[in-house]
Amino acid sequence: MLEHLKEEVFQANLELPKQGLIKYTWGNVSAFDKETGYFVIKPSGVSYEQMQASDMVVVDLDNNVIEGELNPSSDTPTHAVLYKAFPEIGGICHTHSTWATIWAQAGLDLPAMGTTHADTFYGKVPCARFLTQEEIDVGYEHETGNVIIETFKERGIDVMEIPGVLLHGHGPFTWGKDADSAVMNAVVLDEVAKMNLFARQLNSFSEELPQRILDKHYLRKHGKNAYYGQGK
Amino acid sequence: MLEHLKEEVFQANLELPKQGLIKYTWGNVSAFDKETGYFVIKPSGVSYEQMQASDMVVVDLDNNVIEGELNPSSDTPTHAVLYKAFPEIGGICHTHSTWATIWAQAGLDLPAMGTTHADTFYGKVPCARFLTQEEIDVGYEHETGNVIIETFKERGIDVMEIPGVLLHGHGPFTWGKDADSAVMNAVVLDEVAKMNLFARQLNSFSEELPQRILDKHYLRKHGKNAYYGQGK
Amino acid sequence: MLEHLKEEVFQANLELPKQGLIKYTWGNVSAFDKETGYFVIKPSGVSYEQMQASDMVVVDLDNNVIEGELNPSSDTPTHAVLYKAFPEIGGICHTHSTWATIWAQAGLDLPAMGTTHADTFYGKVPCARFLTQEEIDVGYEHETGNVIIETFKERGIDVMEIPGVLLHGHGPFTWGKDADSAVMNAVVLDEVAKMNLFARQLNSFSEELPQRILDKHYLRKHGKNAYYGQGK
Amino acid sequence: MLEHLKEEVFQANLELPKQGLIKYTWGNVSAFDKETGYFVIKPSGVSYEQMQASDMVVVDLDNNVIEGELNPSSDTPTHAVLYKAFPEIGGICHTHSTWATIWAQAGLDLPAMGTTHADTFYGKVPCARFLTQEEIDVGYEHETGNVIIETFKERGIDVMEIPGVLLHGHGPFTWGKDADSAVMNAVVLDEVAKMNLFARQLNSFSEELPQRILDKHYLRKHGKNAYYGQGK
Repeated sequence: MLEHLKEEVFQANLELPKQGLIKYTWGNVSAFDKETGYFVIKPSGVSYEQMQASDMVVVDLDNNVIEGELNPSSDTPTHAVLYKAFPEIGGICHTHSTWATIWAQAGLDLPAMGTTHADTFYGKVPCARFLTQEEIDVGYEHETGNVIIETFKERGIDVMEIPGVLLHGHGPFTWGKDADSAVMNAVVLDEVAKMNLFARQLNSFSEELPQRILDKHYLRKHGKNAYYGQGK
Repeated sequence: MLEHLKEEVFQANLELPKQGLIKYTWGNVSAFDKETGYFVIKPSGVSYEQMQASDMVVVDLDNNVIEGELNPSSDTPTHAVLYKAFPEIGGICHTHSTWATIWAQAGLDLPAMGTTHADTFYGKVPCARFLTQEEIDVGYEHETGNVIIETFKERGIDVMEIPGVLLHGHGPFTWGKDADSAVMNAVVLDEVAKMNLFARQLNSFSEELPQRILDKHYLRKHGKNAYYGQGK
Repeated sequence: MLEHLKEEVFQANLELPKQGLIKYTWGNVSAFDKETGYFVIKPSGVSYEQMQASDMVVVDLDNNVIEGELNPSSDTPTHAVLYKAFPEIGGICHTHSTWATIWAQAGLDLPAMGTTHADTFYGKVPCARFLTQEEIDVGYEHETGNVIIETFKERGIDVMEIPGVLLHGHGPFTWGKDADSAVMNAVVLDEVAKMNLFARQLNSFSEELPQRILDKHYLRKHGKNAYYGQGK
Repeated sequence: MLEHLKEEVFQANLELPKQGLIKYTWGNVSAFDKETGYFVIKPSGVSYEQMQASDMVVVDLDNNVIEGELNPSSDTPTHAVLYKAFPEIGGICHTHSTWATIWAQAGLDLPAMGTTHADTFYGKVPCARFLTQEEIDVGYEHETGNVIIETFKERGIDVMEIPGVLLHGHGPFTWGKDADSAVMNAVVLDEVAKMNLFARQLNSFSEELPQRILDKHYLRKHGKNAYYGQGK
């Protein structure tokens, strides 16, 4: 079942090492199927050299394996919680990519300091808090999803305008309309994390991008008046 | 029409990911044809794997598409303004290359701190100011070109002696006698941006290159007494 | 003899340049054979392009060459001392990988600042002291092993929970159940060394990972309740 | 003539982009032939894709082209001066490699902070001073060689013990018994320049490597008691 989506998810996972976002098996990408309400995700700890499209696991939103011989990614419950909370999300990507993880380890929101950021993220990418002991005990991966939801709800952020988050001490999650765009957003996030770190070092007085430039760049690519690309 | 120039522009665009200057479609290269007064530019948002020479778009200096099925790069008006103002420019390149963009985000001119810089840029590479709200409303990409012109005019800089600029909060534009040299200047700019950042960190007292060394290196490669390479 | 292990050790050594951990011949990997009590190690200073599985050298725990035409790695006595002291170690890897070596040169323990670290190392990776003149005179490579043992004994660290060490002014040694896992631990160590360096630069107040997150991540991958991967 | 040496020099030059030491034509390697007293050097400004072994230029120690259709590297006089002053040098390499150039731009000697350094350089790599206007007028490339000689003479450094130098504001020259070892020393120099920069940032109190460790590492690889590699 969902053979086409398995192929998409498989290819999106392969993109992670190709883009330099992960080493070994340190990442996972999934995609949601609106018709069945299932999602397809990478198996846990399988080497990328051996992995095949048919190894992708089909899971429902309560983390039951619907199809697949292998254990799904250990982060599956985080994906499930996010798909449940945000029906507009079609694909999710988790990595420990170097520069985004550095900001996550520093426990800081990633500010919008340039148009590379503004082309994809409409404002700062939030850093979500550490889980409590209780949350870890209840279910670490499930509660990780809930802490992401809490972060976006409390700050009133639209998940499609800021399609990513940093988990304090851990690394980034990104998402998008499908698996491919989730991975692309992970690439952007890592690159702007690198740029911002050194821009701050170069000039500790550097400010965030003026709101008018942020608006211009985000809106020329997104929304009804977008004019970037070959679209509409 | 302009098939030969399309091939050149196509190849120059392919050079961007090969040289590590861009990810995805975050860049564009164009070249000007003196005979027709048209220029050839990359289409907007087309993946580099799928792009072909025949996808290049022919545009006039008022941004009218003369030939081509696809939308030209959204930055086309910036290229047009520069070709109009500076007839000596034969090729233009825009990227968000990591280290040049870091200086752009920091809002700082890039000083000439070494001979790698002096071999290509005869002095500091200026950082142009943010656009005002009014300029954004009038036409963001067109006014970006005007702010570059303003920067070079106000400071009395010769565009062929300093073939590049940093746009505050955005990234670099470089240019040259053709598309290839515009890309080569983008490579140099990114590399010296990296070197200068860490040289300053290593020794915050490091000064700019003495004028006599700047003169020597720039002039042994450029101008009538140049003796580098297999030339004249 | 030990042809299978020679092939394993050969492949593990080839992994070093592939993973970007070494230049030229600046590294060595070995593996221990419990049955014979011998270990197999890379020859000294042989280029990776010319090296073959049959060039691997078989050595006993007193550094006698049991089989092989070539001199074993000059670091062989360090490997021997570690295999003798810690029977649970099946493979050892030594590199001068950039970021781990930077921490070694700085003479600092590498703290656990993120889950990338916690997935492999159950706490900080210690930095072992410089050898004394006397120790150098007695036998530099042999005493290097002893200083590693001293470091783990004095601090009461389990070598399988923290499968690596930094040698002050030198670089890392890592180990594991076999040659492959020793190399994988070298990759992780270098990556977290890079992440931690820049995380500290970004936020000098960044703290170590809370113990509860360290426990969770280490224990979901290691020990009897581990649930990462495709299981026991 | 000197066909074998041309091939060696050609291959050594190709090694520069392969090792990530240069972009475009920003480097040159030469080798000296003791019998004829000539040296072979890369032509000036020829792209590495087009260059062939037969393009290498044969030059005498007074910079006269003995054989070859192309102009020799513009840095040829620097090479000639060094071969004349130091008969023990068999190969010379010049690059603008990123991290060594950063130290050159900072105008600082590169201290021996680790064994990676000590394995090749028996102490700090000196940074030579800027040339005066008079020296530039007399002959920039020739006088560059003289400033290198001055640096080694004044400080009493043996060129074979410290086979490299940083030119203030410019970049590194390295050398060795042949072209290959000159390039290898350029690789080591760039790598330790990177390590030392970040080691200092990580711990501004980090000291240089103790003399006893420097001695041990340098001498186990060099000199009559060396025991590294497959030996004499």
